[in-house]
Amino acid sequence: MANKLGNLLTLTTFGESHGIAMGGIIDGFPAGVKIDEAFIQAELNRRKPGQSAIVTQRQELDQVQILSGTFEGKSTGTPIGFIILNSNAKAEDYAHLETTFRPSHADFTYTEKYGIRDIAGGGRASARETANWVVAGAFAKLVLKDLGVQIHAHVTQVGELKLNPEALIDFQEVENNPVRCANKDMAIRMEEYIKIIRKEGDTVGGVVECVVQNPPKKLGQPVFDKLHAALGHAMLSINAVKGFEYGSGFYGASMRGSKHNDIFTKKADEIGTVTNHSGGIQGGISNGESIYFKVAFKPVATIMQDQESVDDTGNKVILKGKGRHDPCVVPRAVPIVEALTAFVLLDFYLLNRSTKL
Amino acid sequence: MANKLGNLLTLTTFGESHGIAMGGIIDGFPAGVKIDEAFIQAELNRRKPGQSAIVTQRQELDQVQILSGTFEGKSTGTPIGFIILNSNAKAEDYAHLETTFRPSHADFTYTEKYGIRDIAGGGRASARETANWVVAGAFAKLVLKDLGVQIHAHVTQVGELKLNPEALIDFQEVENNPVRCANKDMAIRMEEYIKIIRKEGDTVGGVVECVVQNPPKKLGQPVFDKLHAALGHAMLSINAVKGFEYGSGFYGASMRGSKHNDIFTKKADEIGTVTNHSGGIQGGISNGESIYFKVAFKPVATIMQDQESVDDTGNKVILKGKGRHDPCVVPRAVPIVEALTAFVLLDFYLLNRSTKL
Amino acid sequence: MANKLGNLLTLTTFGESHGIAMGGIIDGFPAGVKIDEAFIQAELNRRKPGQSAIVTQRQELDQVQILSGTFEGKSTGTPIGFIILNSNAKAEDYAHLETTFRPSHADFTYTEKYGIRDIAGGGRASARETANWVVAGAFAKLVLKDLGVQIHAHVTQVGELKLNPEALIDFQEVENNPVRCANKDMAIRMEEYIKIIRKEGDTVGGVVECVVQNPPKKLGQPVFDKLHAALGHAMLSINAVKGFEYGSGFYGASMRGSKHNDIFTKKADEIGTVTNHSGGIQGGISNGESIYFKVAFKPVATIMQDQESVDDTGNKVILKGKGRHDPCVVPRAVPIVEALTAFVLLDFYLLNRSTKL
Amino acid sequence: MANKLGNLLTLTTFGESHGIAMGGIIDGFPAGVKIDEAFIQAELNRRKPGQSAIVTQRQELDQVQILSGTFEGKSTGTPIGFIILNSNAKAEDYAHLETTFRPSHADFTYTEKYGIRDIAGGGRASARETANWVVAGAFAKLVLKDLGVQIHAHVTQVGELKLNPEALIDFQEVENNPVRCANKDMAIRMEEYIKIIRKEGDTVGGVVECVVQNPPKKLGQPVFDKLHAALGHAMLSINAVKGFEYGSGFYGASMRGSKHNDIFTKKADEIGTVTNHSGGIQGGISNGESIYFKVAFKPVATIMQDQESVDDTGNKVILKGKGRHDPCVVPRAVPIVEALTAFVLLDFYLLNRSTKL
Repeated sequence: MANKLGNLLTLTTFGESHGIAMGGIIDGFPAGVKIDEAFIQAELNRRKPGQSAIVTQRQELDQVQILSGTFEGKSTGTPIGFIILNSNAKAEDYAHLETTFRPSHADFTYTEKYGIRDIAGGGRASARETANWVVAGAFAKLVLKDLGVQIHAHVTQVGELKLNPEALIDFQEVENNPVRCANKDMAIRMEEYIKIIRKEGDTVGGVVECVVQNPPKKLGQPVFDKLHAALGHAMLSINAVKGFEYGSGFYGASMRGSKHNDIFTKKADEIGTVTNHSGGIQGGISNGESIYFKVAFKPVATIMQDQESVDDTGNKVILKGKGRHDPCVVPRAVPIVEALTAFVLLDFYLLNRSTKL
Repeated sequence: MANKLGNLLTLTTFGESHGIAMGGIIDGFPAGVKIDEAFIQAELNRRKPGQSAIVTQRQELDQVQILSGTFEGKSTGTPIGFIILNSNAKAEDYAHLETTFRPSHADFTYTEKYGIRDIAGGGRASARETANWVVAGAFAKLVLKDLGVQIHAHVTQVGELKLNPEALIDFQEVENNPVRCANKDMAIRMEEYIKIIRKEGDTVGGVVECVVQNPPKKLGQPVFDKLHAALGHAMLSINAVKGFEYGSGFYGASMRGSKHNDIFTKKADEIGTVTNHSGGIQGGISNGESIYFKVAFKPVATIMQDQESVDDTGNKVILKGKGRHDPCVVPRAVPIVEALTAFVLLDFYLLNRSTKL
Repeated sequence: MANKLGNLLTLTTFGESHGIAMGGIIDGFPAGVKIDEAFIQAELNRRKPGQSAIVTQRQELDQVQILSGTFEGKSTGTPIGFIILNSNAKAEDYAHLETTFRPSHADFTYTEKYGIRDIAGGGRASARETANWVVAGAFAKLVLKDLGVQIHAHVTQVGELKLNPEALIDFQEVENNPVRCANKDMAIRMEEYIKIIRKEGDTVGGVVECVVQNPPKKLGQPVFDKLHAALGHAMLSINAVKGFEYGSGFYGASMRGSKHNDIFTKKADEIGTVTNHSGGIQGGISNGESIYFKVAFKPVATIMQDQESVDDTGNKVILKGKGRHDPCVVPRAVPIVEALTAFVLLDFYLLNRSTKL
Repeated sequence: MANKLGNLLTLTTFGESHGIAMGGIIDGFPAGVKIDEAFIQAELNRRKPGQSAIVTQRQELDQVQILSGTFEGKSTGTPIGFIILNSNAKAEDYAHLETTFRPSHADFTYTEKYGIRDIAGGGRASARETANWVVAGAFAKLVLKDLGVQIHAHVTQVGELKLNPEALIDFQEVENNPVRCANKDMAIRMEEYIKIIRKEGDTVGGVVECVVQNPPKKLGQPVFDKLHAALGHAMLSINAVKGFEYGSGFYGASMRGSKHNDIFTKKADEIGTVTNHSGGIQGGISNGESIYFKVAFKPVATIMQDQESVDDTGNKVILKGKGRHDPCVVPRAVPIVEALTAFVLLDFYLLNRSTKL
């Protein structure tokens, strides 16, 4: 169960960072959906390393191969198996880590828990796993696009650079800059900032916001599968994520009810709300207003500086900074956040179909 | 599945706010545990309304009755059924809401989703449901106490009053003040603040922090059942919760890797970390350091002021402020946060037992 | 998970035979269904002891109380909690069993597994648990009746008395005789037979057949939730069940393909089959023909004769035959088989709604 | 969920008969187990076609490739991904089936349910899927062998040839004859019989029995995950299976309690039973005696004779008998039955570890 996401629509994955391949099985995907394989690969390309000067320069091909579940270009309702071959595995890069625990990595906890660990590239704990999620999310997006749902994630914070809530947002800009910020000016500042961090051999955290426009109403299964709880669970599964908030979020904790309450009003033929502190979700169920939430990422743990640590006997060691890693993970996290959002939404869309006969 | 929490240890619940009873079934609770019913009731009493001047003055008896799963004072390994009778149901209080949607409540979304709704007291969407969770959490605490695990939640923010991260924390203080803040001075200020809010007929949000001292190592099932994702999912299930962060949280997004990384060191006979920005969880697995996280609550939606809204045909209505409600939910949320924490930890403790033979 | 049945529609239960109460939670039941409580109680009455001279003379009231999930006579889509109070518990009847293992009961295995056991009335292992299932099945029947589905179970074998496959079947007869056999003449013979067995202080096994007429097409989720596998799983959960077969069953093992194959043909406006060795299920999915299957029950383990056994230290003991028990369980099993069938069918009906968009 | 088997130990599979590949993900497999890949491939070879004159002459390479979850020859506790490439796909063989429904195949029900179907080789409904199960079962066997558990399945019936319950059984014989019957003489008779059936262009059903010697005690989770219910569910998932019985099975229905009851007795240092009509399972939990059960298979639906059918518009068509198929499926079913048995047992072995602390 641990490597499975979803309820009616499920993704089960496998794969170590530097193994032969990674991949997954999407079960419960509805039959008869036109499968645009080029779109799926394009989504995967958005996540892959080496796209710009501010991300890792590792070259990974990240070519997905669909092995089942489609027939003559359409989904058949049977499980969709897929794999992504690992082309750039250099296990020897990691031989020195066999008995050493990198700070703020999963080396120590995996060793404690399992008594054994695939040392190459972080093994199963590597963020390379998220490639599988982007594939699954791309499938979900194919359905959601047909339903008119639009999912846009973008970077709102890099280190201490935080986009002002009143700043101009243009989702068309996101793919035009390497940071994936929806504000052009801030994007340039963030890019410069990351370059400095990188030069210092350091890394920095950031925040990704996701906005779902025109979401389906009625999604969310009270009480333990509230839509925002499912979204939060998915986001907190992403490597390096430290926090999740939706709607007014942590700021809402400082507000008064008289200001926070979203007054209902008639909009065209539908009932909507004047403000949207609820983030499009009330009582755990989507109300038709835009869903929005923020995801906080810590700085990447692998830095290009020497660090103290211990080996598995507790002796002090000095870890040299080396390898090819991201100075800031959030630009590449944008397609991951979108993918998981799409997957959760489609799962809950299917779940909702059994609410009434 | 929607009303079930947990994997090996599960809680399934039922009950509307003003129905005959609420209750639940705890399945997978280990056999042979001494069941201290007085402790369970005492935990439930911590959550109940009417305890002080700053919470709702509703009088609910909240007496839990255990119906199965114990024999001669010990758990038998079979499901533990329990109920809490509703003694103070006044359905007529809500008759005026039949066709009206209260702002930022679940009235609208439940009606949209189900086409029918138990109007009394918010029905299934009421926070009264959390009484069930406190019972289940109390059972889990019985086991965790024997394992030496200590779980302490307390209030760190009420509206704009935020406890300084460097302020003195004394968990012994929590039950000594009605706000349940671990800092005596701040507790007094918060109490005054809530009284003012209440007098204005308004409500205010807040933040609850939870600290788990001496947690078991090795808890967490990568990749989609990371310990913090499960904790986040549980916390985001609590009514009015808008955000969750653990360890460095959202603040971590502004930090650099060189500062954020937790350096390993030898502590007594074990390997630990010098700092704990990881919040006791690395790669989704507990590393033995204290686990800590924060939960943000929005202000209670029911205010003692008139508000605009619409009825189910979209016509404008004015809602009068009436009823007995909490001006600030966080004091009563403290035992709920602890209960869910305990439940998740015990579930993952059991899950971990199958990791190695 | 162990005390839960179903996927989208789930039943979770609790309760020991002689505890305060038993009950359950039905989650995922669709909203807006008219709830006929009298029908539900009537179904439960079909299962209760003391109905005739050939079943146990225990008097149990078996009154179900619905605690949540309905509003003004309709289901609301929220979990349906229910309890059945135990009125006739005589724990002292079982005191002598504390350290003794009754042959072919669950006394030994529960003690081994849990290290503790509620001795009264078999505790959780008692068939009294099936009262919960009949309640849940009655809810499911309410929906299926509206869909035109008819579920008929009846007794086809008692000990060595086996109904000829060519014998006349009239489901109207089932409730007219205490054995619940659909053939009047055989019913009389079976009744006499059971009376003799009873006089001898012995018990006897039997077989229940279930026929689902006009079932929905398309039910069944390949490959591990084939409809017949789910039905088999449910039936094998009933106390004393030793076997399950559907369609041609074990007899089909002796047939040739040229005789066994069900030839497709046009029936009215639909495609059907000439024969129905498939039992209405092909490739795990219902094809619209009648679904039928058989369930084998062993003889009740409690007999009115002295038996050898051992106590928990392995010493020989003689168990006296006493108590009030069924000489043959199948008449009372008929409503249980129907109930689980209805529950599984409705679960799969809901599951099927997400197959296509 | 539909393509997943198991609870803590899960197998999720994908793949169509004539697609690029099939495969699966084993999640929850314990860490630190020595992985004997040659053994896994040998198990798979036992299932593959073309092994003798009495099975299909299709040549499929059936080479399994393990993609993740092992490190230096041991399991790591992370998901084990594997694939089996399809080498012998001849989609054109099936072009004539595009609009025709083969009798007693899944063609009709898949088309009805999904509105689309991969026609080649039965697509997802093909028994080729079971190759995945044999791989997963082989992994489970690696653990069970270390625990001293022995699993032996063999053929006890082919068409009307039924092994006498008193006949000599020697599990060493099973792999010495192409029928996989544990009785040498009957094996010869069955082989002759199948050859005649084959010559007639017909097929025939059969029965496989499975015996688990020295099973772990305490396996089984009452009430809805009784061990025999889980075994039955798994067996009923195998293509062509029509029935399942354990212990006394359907024959037990004709017995009296005084004969059927298994008297407890002291055996060496343990408590066991004199007879074993219970089939090693009481109250759904293994008691330490041998577990045994029977699985009934219908005759293969593809016969080498002309058959009537209809096309998707309901028009009559004549289907020619062609292709390469098994005249009797049970010899190749033996390793499949063993594999699922091993998988279920290991899952329940892991589940049982959380029963007591």
